[in-house]
Amino acid sequence: MDRITETVIEADPRLPVIRMSRDFAATAEQLFRAHTDPELFARWVGPDTMTTRIEHWDASTGGSWRYASVRGDTEYRFRGCFHDVRPDRIVQTFTFEGEPDGVALETLWFEDLGDGRTRLRTQSLVDSFEGRDAWLRSGMEVGVNEGYAKLERMIVDGAV
Amino acid sequence: MDRITETVIEADPRLPVIRMSRDFAATAEQLFRAHTDPELFARWVGPDTMTTRIEHWDASTGGSWRYASVRGDTEYRFRGCFHDVRPDRIVQTFTFEGEPDGVALETLWFEDLGDGRTRLRTQSLVDSFEGRDAWLRSGMEVGVNEGYAKLERMIVDGAV
Repeated sequence: MDRITETVIEADPRLPVIRMSRDFAATAEQLFRAHTDPELFARWVGPDTMTTRIEHWDASTGGSWRYASVRGDTEYRFRGCFHDVRPDRIVQTFTFEGEPDGVALETLWFEDLGDGRTRLRTQSLVDSFEGRDAWLRSGMEVGVNEGYAKLERMIVDGAV
Repeated sequence: MDRITETVIEADPRLPVIRMSRDFAATAEQLFRAHTDPELFARWVGPDTMTTRIEHWDASTGGSWRYASVRGDTEYRFRGCFHDVRPDRIVQTFTFEGEPDGVALETLWFEDLGDGRTRLRTQSLVDSFEGRDAWLRSGMEVGVNEGYAKLERMIVDGAV
C-alpha cells in the first residue's frame, strides 16, 4: 500500500476546468485497459460505498457508455460518448442523468514516466464556473481518491 | 430572399465559448431535421465553394458522425460523437481532423418563437481562449453565413 498517494485536484483560475493528476506503478497500457475494459473499470471507479453496474459500453472512437452507481436501493446513472479513444488519450463526454442538461468534456492522458510508472492526467471542461465550483464542493474527491486507491490495489494484485 | 439575416456571432469574455444565434422561418422540427438528416445536412452545411460528403452518420444519442468538405482535390474532414439528440437540443463533439488534438463541445438549441419561426442558438466550448480566438479569426463566419443562407433557401423551397 506504500504506493498510494493523493490525487492532485486543481481548479483552473481562468477556465471552467478541473484538472487531476496521479502517478501509478503501472504502464500506460495497463491504465488504458483499466479505463476501457468495462469489467475492470466497474471494479475500481467510484467511492467504496458504491458498486458500479455497466449498462452500455463501447470504448472506441465514436462509441458510447452508460453505467449506474448503486448503493442499496439508490442508483445514480451516468452516460456519455467516446469522442476519441487512443492508447495515450481518451476524450469523452460525461453527464450525470440526475442533471441531464449538464455536460462535461473529459480528456484523459496516459503519460509514460519510464520504469513502469505512468502519470494519469485528466481534464474536465464545463461551460460555467458556477457548475465547476459546485462540483468541486460536492465532495467528489472522496470518490476520486477511493476509486484510484482501488485501482492501485488491482495493479498491485496483478488484476489489470 | 427577404428572410435572410446575418448570424449573430459572439465570443464570451469570461469563457472559451463562441455563441451564435439566427432566426429561421421554420419550425423547430424542420431545423431539427435539417441538422439530423444526413442528406439534408450535406446540402446546406459549409461555404458555397465546398460540397459535403457524409462518411458516417448516426444522429442519435450515443451515435457519431464524420464528413468531408470537398473543393476539387482538396478535402477537409470533420468528425465527432453525438452526446445527446433531443427535439429541442443536440449536444455533440467536433474535431477538424487536420488538428486532431482539438475538440469542441457543441450545443444546439431549437427555440420555438411561435408563428412558424424558430431561433437556432449554438454554443461551441473549447479548452483555451487562444484556440477559440484563432477560430474566430479564421474567417469561419463566411461558411456559417453561407451555410445558413443555403438552409434558408431550402426552407423557402420546401426542401426541409
